[in-house]
Amino acid sequence: MSETFNPTTRSKARRKADRAAYDEASVYAVLDAAVLCHVGYVLDGEPFVTPTTFWREGRKLYWHGSAASRMIRAQGPGLPVCVTVTHMDGLVLARSGIAHSMNYRSVMAFGTARMVEGLEARREAMSAFIDRLYPDRSAELRPALDQEIKQIGLVEMTIEEASAKSRSGGVNGTDLDEDWNAWSGVIPVATVIGARQADAVRSAGASSSPSLDLYLPGARLDEVLAVAHKI
Amino acid sequence: MSETFNPTTRSKARRKADRAAYDEASVYAVLDAAVLCHVGYVLDGEPFVTPTTFWREGRKLYWHGSAASRMIRAQGPGLPVCVTVTHMDGLVLARSGIAHSMNYRSVMAFGTARMVEGLEARREAMSAFIDRLYPDRSAELRPALDQEIKQIGLVEMTIEEASAKSRSGGVNGTDLDEDWNAWSGVIPVATVIGARQADAVRSAGASSSPSLDLYLPGARLDEVLAVAHKI
Repeated sequence: MSETFNPTTRSKARRKADRAAYDEASVYAVLDAAVLCHVGYVLDGEPFVTPTTFWREGRKLYWHGSAASRMIRAQGPGLPVCVTVTHMDGLVLARSGIAHSMNYRSVMAFGTARMVEGLEARREAMSAFIDRLYPDRSAELRPALDQEIKQIGLVEMTIEEASAKSRSGGVNGTDLDEDWNAWSGVIPVATVIGARQADAVRSAGASSSPSLDLYLPGARLDEVLAVAHKI
Repeated sequence: MSETFNPTTRSKARRKADRAAYDEASVYAVLDAAVLCHVGYVLDGEPFVTPTTFWREGRKLYWHGSAASRMIRAQGPGLPVCVTVTHMDGLVLARSGIAHSMNYRSVMAFGTARMVEGLEARREAMSAFIDRLYPDRSAELRPALDQEIKQIGLVEMTIEEASAKSRSGGVNGTDLDEDWNAWSGVIPVATVIGARQADAVRSAGASSSPSLDLYLPGARLDEVLAVAHKI
């Protein structure tokens, strides 16, 4: 039984409410199929949207950057953020312009970003990030040096509110459109994994790690990430 | 000879300046390869990031939504926004956690979003959007009714400042990593077009439109969009 994020005016969908969901299962399904998010925050009253990789543990989202980066420094002491994740699933072509649409899955998650302090906490979190993407990979890697961990600014955000929105399926045209002859339907799109490019120097002789077995050429990245998250 | 966006503290990259560019050619190359952007704005001091489709004409970006949507209504009279576009090109796996990275191309564009007034201006802009994605398609479509155009909230933003950032290429490991045996290299990812799903009802007997010839199964969406933008 999935818990629900209680929407306020901040996260409640005003329009197309049939496309919106607020339960953890719906929100996490979108988040866990992604590694890229767009973090929105306000500096001196101005909006900024920074793309970054992220991961989820329970109701917490994590991302990191250089401890010297503007975003990380601004978020260090605690800064309200909106983290948005979007999967584009298809282009919907109708016989009238207004009925053209996009199939997608998205989440807007609201909370306060804060820096995670402590070398060990950051070290463990970075290993958790690696293992979340590539199961058990962190054990195969050269351990991080303290001075490397010190360069990392790690931010965590507890999701206070979140809403998931999606559109799927075919064309919603009107009867008026039926007299027109333009091709109508859906052009699916998906982010797909390509052929691995081994590092010529460092991977000479290295066998592909079991932690990468999910990343097969032609596989959908969203499906791979969703599976990896459960391992 | 490409014009340059003059960066201020708002858009100037503080870190990895070698990954940043401010010239129109670099910025437009990222924007024109995308149809999805993330629009950041501030309401009551809180950040919001809304994913939406967009298009570019010169230094102007356009997006639309229901005239009743919160984002569109808030931006109507003029609202500062940050429009961010990100292409994910690959996962970079090193032999130390800290050297893991992502290959990407992104743009942050800053300006003030404003509602476009006037039925005809909105009608022409919506046709321009269709034709930007699907060359000459608008002529194949049932013309929009006035009451349909009235439902559309069209927003334009002149890019005041923009910066492009990207990372490409292979692994940047350290000598320390070379003693470790984990597989190291790049796992490319790309958003790819799938097999078309014709609308069973309305597309019965309809031949695929020439406006869709670019959208071949297996083609990269970013490359298709970049080509379509030049037609």
